[in-house]
Amino acid sequence: MHLDEHSDTPFYRQLEAQMREGIESGTYPTGSRLPSIRGLAADLGCARNTVEQAYHLLVQEGYVASRPGSGYVVQNVAYLQPDASAPSCAVLLGGSRRKARYDFTYGNLEPGTFPATAWRAITDDILLSVEAAGCDAYNDPFGEESLRAAIAWRLVTQRDIDCTPEQIVVQGGTQTSVQNLLTLFDAARDTVAMEDPGYDGVRSVIGRARFAIRPCRVTDDVRVFLSDLESSGARLAYLTPSSQFPTCRIMPTDVRERVLAWAEAADAYILEDDYCRDFRYRERSLAPLASMDGRGRVIYMGTFSKSLSPALRMNYLVLPTPLLKRWREAFASSYSPVPWLNQQVLARFMTDGSWDRHLRRVQTRNRRKYDALTAALREYMGDKVDVLECGTGLHLLVRVRDGRSQDELVAAAAAADVAVYPTKKYWANPACATKGVVLVGFSSIAEADIRPGIAALARAWFG
Amino acid sequence: MHLDEHSDTPFYRQLEAQMREGIESGTYPTGSRLPSIRGLAADLGCARNTVEQAYHLLVQEGYVASRPGSGYVVQNVAYLQPDASAPSCAVLLGGSRRKARYDFTYGNLEPGTFPATAWRAITDDILLSVEAAGCDAYNDPFGEESLRAAIAWRLVTQRDIDCTPEQIVVQGGTQTSVQNLLTLFDAARDTVAMEDPGYDGVRSVIGRARFAIRPCRVTDDVRVFLSDLESSGARLAYLTPSSQFPTCRIMPTDVRERVLAWAEAADAYILEDDYCRDFRYRERSLAPLASMDGRGRVIYMGTFSKSLSPALRMNYLVLPTPLLKRWREAFASSYSPVPWLNQQVLARFMTDGSWDRHLRRVQTRNRRKYDALTAALREYMGDKVDVLECGTGLHLLVRVRDGRSQDELVAAAAAADVAVYPTKKYWANPACATKGVVLVGFSSIAEADIRPGIAALARAWFG
Repeated sequence: MHLDEHSDTPFYRQLEAQMREGIESGTYPTGSRLPSIRGLAADLGCARNTVEQAYHLLVQEGYVASRPGSGYVVQNVAYLQPDASAPSCAVLLGGSRRKARYDFTYGNLEPGTFPATAWRAITDDILLSVEAAGCDAYNDPFGEESLRAAIAWRLVTQRDIDCTPEQIVVQGGTQTSVQNLLTLFDAARDTVAMEDPGYDGVRSVIGRARFAIRPCRVTDDVRVFLSDLESSGARLAYLTPSSQFPTCRIMPTDVRERVLAWAEAADAYILEDDYCRDFRYRERSLAPLASMDGRGRVIYMGTFSKSLSPALRMNYLVLPTPLLKRWREAFASSYSPVPWLNQQVLARFMTDGSWDRHLRRVQTRNRRKYDALTAALREYMGDKVDVLECGTGLHLLVRVRDGRSQDELVAAAAAADVAVYPTKKYWANPACATKGVVLVGFSSIAEADIRPGIAALARAWFG
Repeated sequence: MHLDEHSDTPFYRQLEAQMREGIESGTYPTGSRLPSIRGLAADLGCARNTVEQAYHLLVQEGYVASRPGSGYVVQNVAYLQPDASAPSCAVLLGGSRRKARYDFTYGNLEPGTFPATAWRAITDDILLSVEAAGCDAYNDPFGEESLRAAIAWRLVTQRDIDCTPEQIVVQGGTQTSVQNLLTLFDAARDTVAMEDPGYDGVRSVIGRARFAIRPCRVTDDVRVFLSDLESSGARLAYLTPSSQFPTCRIMPTDVRERVLAWAEAADAYILEDDYCRDFRYRERSLAPLASMDGRGRVIYMGTFSKSLSPALRMNYLVLPTPLLKRWREAFASSYSPVPWLNQQVLARFMTDGSWDRHLRRVQTRNRRKYDALTAALREYMGDKVDVLECGTGLHLLVRVRDGRSQDELVAAAAAADVAVYPTKKYWANPACATKGVVLVGFSSIAEADIRPGIAALARAWFG
């Protein structure tokens, strides 16, 4: 084992690559222990943190498991090979076995984003107090009062949404929320409208619940979308007005008014997924549909996955009064899907000032990444591509106009150790997907990797 | 404010009652702060812990909220009044506004059960390490590998269930599990069988998913149950063989064999809810159905709610291979419903020895309570009641034979500040509920309160 001081690759990545080869080649057989962090760091003359980071990558990749008391144990690598009968988790998550050097993935946050220190301090505080007895009882099925109050206060003061804590239900993520909401509708009778292209995770929940889905085409001409929606016969429409996923389009105010009028006329509800309101880089946000809604037609959905942690599994719905009543009846004998402790910690995080500091930090970081990414795309690709973005969110779309397919572009990038992502799966009919459009995310990649990553991508695509 | 040293009521309860009256009478108006814990303890000459416990009760009851930085703030009490249009959470949880002096509730654990110290230490450990980056990414949709490995190891070594970590999916509680499992079946075509009486929480999930339910009567004659099941035409049966809920009956081995044979012949699956295997006070458990199942007909469900924390919202399913494949397809683009951090902490809690120590402690405590409860019932009620129990679980049923209804018995108990619970809701048709049968739980009440509680109940019922 040897660390090359002159390489551009950081020590921990060099070490990780060498250990990985050792595991794959059988130098470290399944079940064996890796050298201790302290010992290996001493042998190599590097910092213990370097070894720890390398080992952590190996854990993330599934090569080793961290076992308390017995260190890092090599896992059966055969299990990592994608296998049709029992696909590994990484495969199902859409991830690959090994992370690309430049990974423009969407959804995950940059390692270190989670405010672990504040979270730890609050958790300690709660578990050391008599309040810890909250862990011994079933919790409020609609969410802890303190968290609902903190959420409602922010919605009222910062998003102009007129709501009370009683209208809020705390849920375990977008998909769980939609799954639960759909139980208030009837799959045998009700159709659900959704944007096309749109978020595949929600499309699959609706499909699993056996509802008919009416796609509403999102194109340059909003009349197409409105006409699809207005003729949909849907009782529920899933929409992302503040940054349409994945096209990043912002729904104009007049369209918002038409959409609300449609809901009123059709006796339908709108599920407004406001998943990325916190990330806005050029102009102020338009008010959410929920703030324009005087008739109780909009269900507002917010999330903590984009700004705090996707692994926290926490989001919320704001239910208009008629649906609130149905929800409370349907879930009267249910338990909350969200752990009590996590809700309590988040509530205190939101009220003790930590949340504002954290959000500003993440917003600043994402704005810098957005600037770096758009600048690098201009610099290295210029007019060879169209960049589709509206100064919002955590990704943008890049269209290559030379006729290559998404798969060809993604494969060419992968060959250069750059991961960008196809967008086909977001279309109701993948054959309709726009040719040559790939997704480039910037929430997970380090800011310093953006420019060299786009440079490598440009070389891979255009030579 | 005055604490009476000669009263039988503990100081903190005296204090809580006086504060509560002060809030209800307006002495402490909505929005005002309660005196500081330190100051009030000094004024009254009592321990700070006494005041803290009293305040904690008031928080639990909703009279005050604990706000970091601003102490304990009086809440709008009017909101606590049950109201049909917006029922308070306590009401929906089946709880009452004020806890009875002797509360034989079911489900919740005794305050202090949760191993807060160990949980805190492990949480700290993880959040301080590089592993904390797990909070920044979407987690494994089927559950963290380390937790699934810990669960599988225990199932294989302690419950004789032949399974691998790959068959386990970590879920957010029984109801969520059933809701997700049902998406693999078709409500338009498939019937679900369940025990009658049976767990109402699961019945409502099945109903909400619009499946037809076929009740299988649980009576003294198992042939009735078998005949109902065998003629059910069901594709899925929800069963609680190790301690039938709520009758506590243990399914005999020959019936288990018949049930498995039925599933095989009917091409059906059995969801075995083994929710209280850890609590067994007289004889060894029978092997779970899942361990007898050679044909992949049994879905095994285990929980952490009864032994660790109902507020943790974590349980798991063990899927037989054919269903595992369908599950992985259906949830391929889903995220896990369970927070990453909680899974990691639990995995380490299970592997570092904490779990065994904790479980023994809880088992010992529940056995002592079971002994105290059954002894007190014999002593104070003798042959005036039938006690239905099989030395399992965390509750028993008491049948009063003098013709009084459940509601009359519960009301008479409540008048004496004792809470016992009606069982009607467990029947598919509440009119069929056995007269005079009430549920008496012992997981939540303190051991020392059991004997005086049953004495008070006997006086209330029989004079």
